[in-house]
Amino acid sequence: MKRQHVIGMFDSGVGGLTVMKRIREQLPDVRIIYVGDTARVPYGNRGKEELIRFGEEISSFLISQGAEAIVVACNTSSAVALPALRERFGIPIIGTIDQGARLAVQTTKRGRIGLIATEATVRSRAYSLAVSQALAKGVLPRAADLRAAYQSGEKSIGLVKAQGCPLFVPIVEAGLANSVEAKVIAKLYLGPLLAADVDAVILGCTHYPFLVQVIREFFGPDVDLVDPAEAMVEELRHVLAGLEEREEMPPAGRGNWHVRYYVSGYPELFVQVGATLLKEPITDVRQINWAETGLD
Amino acid sequence: MKRQHVIGMFDSGVGGLTVMKRIREQLPDVRIIYVGDTARVPYGNRGKEELIRFGEEISSFLISQGAEAIVVACNTSSAVALPALRERFGIPIIGTIDQGARLAVQTTKRGRIGLIATEATVRSRAYSLAVSQALAKGVLPRAADLRAAYQSGEKSIGLVKAQGCPLFVPIVEAGLANSVEAKVIAKLYLGPLLAADVDAVILGCTHYPFLVQVIREFFGPDVDLVDPAEAMVEELRHVLAGLEEREEMPPAGRGNWHVRYYVSGYPELFVQVGATLLKEPITDVRQINWAETGLD
Repeated sequence: MKRQHVIGMFDSGVGGLTVMKRIREQLPDVRIIYVGDTARVPYGNRGKEELIRFGEEISSFLISQGAEAIVVACNTSSAVALPALRERFGIPIIGTIDQGARLAVQTTKRGRIGLIATEATVRSRAYSLAVSQALAKGVLPRAADLRAAYQSGEKSIGLVKAQGCPLFVPIVEAGLANSVEAKVIAKLYLGPLLAADVDAVILGCTHYPFLVQVIREFFGPDVDLVDPAEAMVEELRHVLAGLEEREEMPPAGRGNWHVRYYVSGYPELFVQVGATLLKEPITDVRQINWAETGLD
Repeated sequence: MKRQHVIGMFDSGVGGLTVMKRIREQLPDVRIIYVGDTARVPYGNRGKEELIRFGEEISSFLISQGAEAIVVACNTSSAVALPALRERFGIPIIGTIDQGARLAVQTTKRGRIGLIATEATVRSRAYSLAVSQALAKGVLPRAADLRAAYQSGEKSIGLVKAQGCPLFVPIVEAGLANSVEAKVIAKLYLGPLLAADVDAVILGCTHYPFLVQVIREFFGPDVDLVDPAEAMVEELRHVLAGLEEREEMPPAGRGNWHVRYYVSGYPELFVQVGATLLKEPITDVRQINWAETGLD
């Protein structure tokens, strides 16, 4: 029997569960250690140094538990802390933004990409940069005519509108993802994207796939929704295939388990909100206190 | 010099600060110990037993710190846990609902009272009951013609519309109290009250005074907004006047301080959100772990 790989992933809270769900569906043999930093949620308004420190604490912990690769399932952390984490830790680290940008470039039919995200992610301009970089690295649209236009020198493909949606995360966390409130606020936030004539919209926050029904209803069939998690899973598959078999079984490699959760806040609330969102029970949740891990 | 009284107060989070602000403005000599149970916020969807247990833990702690009276600055706790707390503890306990109902009856000009609150408070029907009880106890409107009509047998005074506003607390906690989002959602929630032709609206959640500008803008000058905190301060003044002087100085009676904060979650977030809402700095915040107090 092939040894099961162990990966670590983290988010400020329940948002990363949308990424975890996709990984579990498509890579069912992977063991996942999920950290929800619920005592320090939201990350959206924190400073760069703080976000790097949080990412380092959590990554150290995940590695100490046997993680062979880390998925940063939080756009704010990905936008701000990813380079520092990659520099410090010697294992593959997958973020949301490069993957989301790549998938958006492949998906767009007319080259007009939109973004919805937290204010912090919008302000970081990380998606705009990542879209340009993806094109520079040779990622091209699947749409033949747009690909041809780009290759013949047309430069119009890009992120044409980035919209901060500060109330979307609170709406999801309040259990109101499919409510009238969500529809009213979606209209407010998504209107400017429609006005900007986008044809593909990046869901630039891992909470947003929980709102996909309301968002799709607003845009209708002509706008494609791009969930970075889709590309993250492909990248993870690629990373796992390249991992060398380790001599020693990591600590988390023993026993019979699939997902193990650690949260920094009260487990109870995470279990309740997470299970409601995932529509399945969440078990094996432990509380962790970063100050007590002694890792840094 | 007259000894300063020490009172305790609590809320699930920052909402109770609106009550604290009024107490400090009108009773500046009172020392306040404020507990924000931020690790267990929100209270809105919790069960009765749990809410009673939380209230007992916090009240025990407040009394151990020298509180001579307790202000329950949370409508959900007031609606559900107040009778149990009064039965268990031998000091005066002031809640939001009796006081808010009394003030609403006094305020209404045409007898048509509306309520905005969390879903839990609306479901409890506590305000509806309290309005009836206030009238039964002889509380009467200040408006002369309505008072006369009631005294001559007219029975129409009452709570005619109760509206749950589940997104108002998340909006305040996200720092969006004066945003476009708040206006859009206010329209959604407050429209039915206007349609029900109310003339006075109880702000049935201590977070809502932070939204008063948006709410007042929606209703215009013909609808009175009733903040229970106004009546709670009067009740507290009355309670303090009736307190016997204690022989011994309580532990919290020493030293030179006005407000002391305890939170069960991360102090940092409470300080940040609270100071933004209060528009003044919050200092002297300590973290408390109920499990470690050993009180029960």
